[in-house]
Amino acid sequence: MKLTALLNDCQQEINGFLTDIIAARQAPSSQLNKAMHYALVLGGKRVRPFLTLQIATLCDAPPALARRAAAAVECIHAYSLIHDDLPAMDDDVLRRGQPSCHVAFDEATAILAGDALQALAFELLSQPEPQARAAQQLAMVQYLAVAAGDKGMCGGQALDLEATARQLNQSQLEQVHQHKTGALIRAAAQLGVLAGADEAQRYLGDFDAYAGYLGLAFQVQDDILDVTSSTEALGKTQGSDLNANKATYVQLLGLDGARSEVKALHQKALHALARIPYNTLVLEKLAESLLTRDH
Amino acid sequence: MKLTALLNDCQQEINGFLTDIIAARQAPSSQLNKAMHYALVLGGKRVRPFLTLQIATLCDAPPALARRAAAAVECIHAYSLIHDDLPAMDDDVLRRGQPSCHVAFDEATAILAGDALQALAFELLSQPEPQARAAQQLAMVQYLAVAAGDKGMCGGQALDLEATARQLNQSQLEQVHQHKTGALIRAAAQLGVLAGADEAQRYLGDFDAYAGYLGLAFQVQDDILDVTSSTEALGKTQGSDLNANKATYVQLLGLDGARSEVKALHQKALHALARIPYNTLVLEKLAESLLTRDH
Repeated sequence: MKLTALLNDCQQEINGFLTDIIAARQAPSSQLNKAMHYALVLGGKRVRPFLTLQIATLCDAPPALARRAAAAVECIHAYSLIHDDLPAMDDDVLRRGQPSCHVAFDEATAILAGDALQALAFELLSQPEPQARAAQQLAMVQYLAVAAGDKGMCGGQALDLEATARQLNQSQLEQVHQHKTGALIRAAAQLGVLAGADEAQRYLGDFDAYAGYLGLAFQVQDDILDVTSSTEALGKTQGSDLNANKATYVQLLGLDGARSEVKALHQKALHALARIPYNTLVLEKLAESLLTRDH
Repeated sequence: MKLTALLNDCQQEINGFLTDIIAARQAPSSQLNKAMHYALVLGGKRVRPFLTLQIATLCDAPPALARRAAAAVECIHAYSLIHDDLPAMDDDVLRRGQPSCHVAFDEATAILAGDALQALAFELLSQPEPQARAAQQLAMVQYLAVAAGDKGMCGGQALDLEATARQLNQSQLEQVHQHKTGALIRAAAQLGVLAGADEAQRYLGDFDAYAGYLGLAFQVQDDILDVTSSTEALGKTQGSDLNANKATYVQLLGLDGARSEVKALHQKALHALARIPYNTLVLEKLAESLLTRDH
C-alpha cells in the first residue's frame, strides 16, 4: 500500500474514533463539546496519531490501547493549537484554512475546550484496559504528562514567547522547537512503544530518536514553507512567522542552509530506524513524505 | 489538636511540598515556573489537599502517594483559578487579595502556567511509587481526569458562562456548582481513598458523598459571603457575582433560605461521615469550620 493511501486510511480511522469519543461524552455543556469536536476534527495531517498507531502495531500493542494512545496525543496537540491561536498568544484567526476555535466560538469557550481536551487525554490513557498492564498505562500517562507540561510543550511555548523580543542562535532555536513541538512528537512515538509488548521496550530509545529527528526536521521544513509556500496551500497566513519577527531556521541558516539541515536530520532519523529489527518501511516513507512536502 | 492548628500545620506542609515540587522542576522557562509557583502558593485555605491528606491518613495510604495526590488536586485547582481570572473569562484582577496571575505576569504566561499545572497534576499522580500498586495510581489519574474535564470542572465552567445571560432555577444552579467546584472537591476526597488500603475502598462512596455535600454547602456559603462580607475579608471584589448578574443561591432562596440550605447540606455531610467506621472527627470539624466561616 502506498504511504498516501495508508495515511488517508489512518486519517479516516483517527477522525472516526475522535468523533466517536466526543459523541459519547454525555458532558453537561453541549457547546463545550462542540468546540472540542471542532478543534479535534478540524483536519491536519494526523502525523502524531499516525506515528503512535504505526509504532504500536510494530510493537504488538493491543489495538484498543493503541487507539486511545493515538487519540490522547491528538487531544494534547489539538488543545495546544487552540491555546496557541488565542489573541493573547499567537493571535491567529486561521487554523488549517478554517476559523480558529476562538473565532468559531468565543475566547472563553476556546480556553475551556483546550483545558478539557488536555484532561480528556489523560482520561483516555487511564481507562481500564483488560489487555494491558496498569504499570504500562501509568508509564504512558507519565510520558505524556512530562511531554505536555513545563518540561515539554508548555515550556517550549513559554521559551518561544520570551524569544520574540530577541535574536536566538541555532541552539537556542533548537531548544524552543525540541520543547514546543518535539516533545509531543516524541511522546507520540514513545506511547506507541509503551503500549506494546515487553520485548519491544528495548527499542524505545531508537523509536524516540527517530521521532526527535523527524520532529526537528519537520519544524525546519515548516520554516522553509513559511517563506516559499502560499497562504492558500499552507492554511495559515504566509510569512506569518517572519512577520512576527520570530527567529526561524531560514533566517539563521538561509534557505539553502535550512534545506541542508532538513536533509541531515532526515538521515539521522533513518539511521535510528535502521537500529530497529522490525519492518519500519512505513516510518521511512513517512519521513520522506513529510520532509519533501511543499505545504 | 484544634482544627485551626491542624489546618495551619497542613497548610505549611502543603505549601512546603508545592514549593519543593516547583523548585525541583528544572524546566526550560524560569518565567513559566515562576508563574506556576506564584499561582500555586498564592495562599488559599488548602481545603482540597487537606481533605486528600486527612482521608488518605484515615485510609492508611502511603504518605508519599498521599502528598502527591494532594499536590495534584491543588495543581488542578490553581490552574482553574488562573484560567478563571483571565480577561476572556471572569476578568478578575484580584485573587486571594493579590494580583491575579495574568496581572502579575501576562496573559500568555498565565494561560501556559495553567496548562502546565494541569499536566503537572497528572505527572505527579503517575510517578512510579514503590509502596503503591500501578492499578491504584491509574485509578487516581482516571478520577482526577474525569473530575477536571468536560464532565466535571471544565463542563461546569462552560455551563456557568452560558448561564450569565439567563435566569437559572435552583436545580440548574446546583448542576453548575456540582460540576464547576463540586467535582474537584469530590476528587480530592476520592483520591485520598484511592491512595489508601484495599479495605478502605468500600467507603469510597461515603467519603465521596461527604465531599459532595461539603462542596455544595461551601458554594452556597460563598454566595452568602459575597453579599455579607467585605472586599477586604474576602480577598476578591465584594458583590462581584451579583454585579456580574450571575445566578446565586441568595438571589434564588433569599439570605435566610440560603442559610437554611447550608445547614441542611451540612447535616447530610455529617450523615455520610457517620457511615464510616473511622475516626472522622477532623472531617466533622472541617465541615463546621467551613460552613460557619465569615470570609
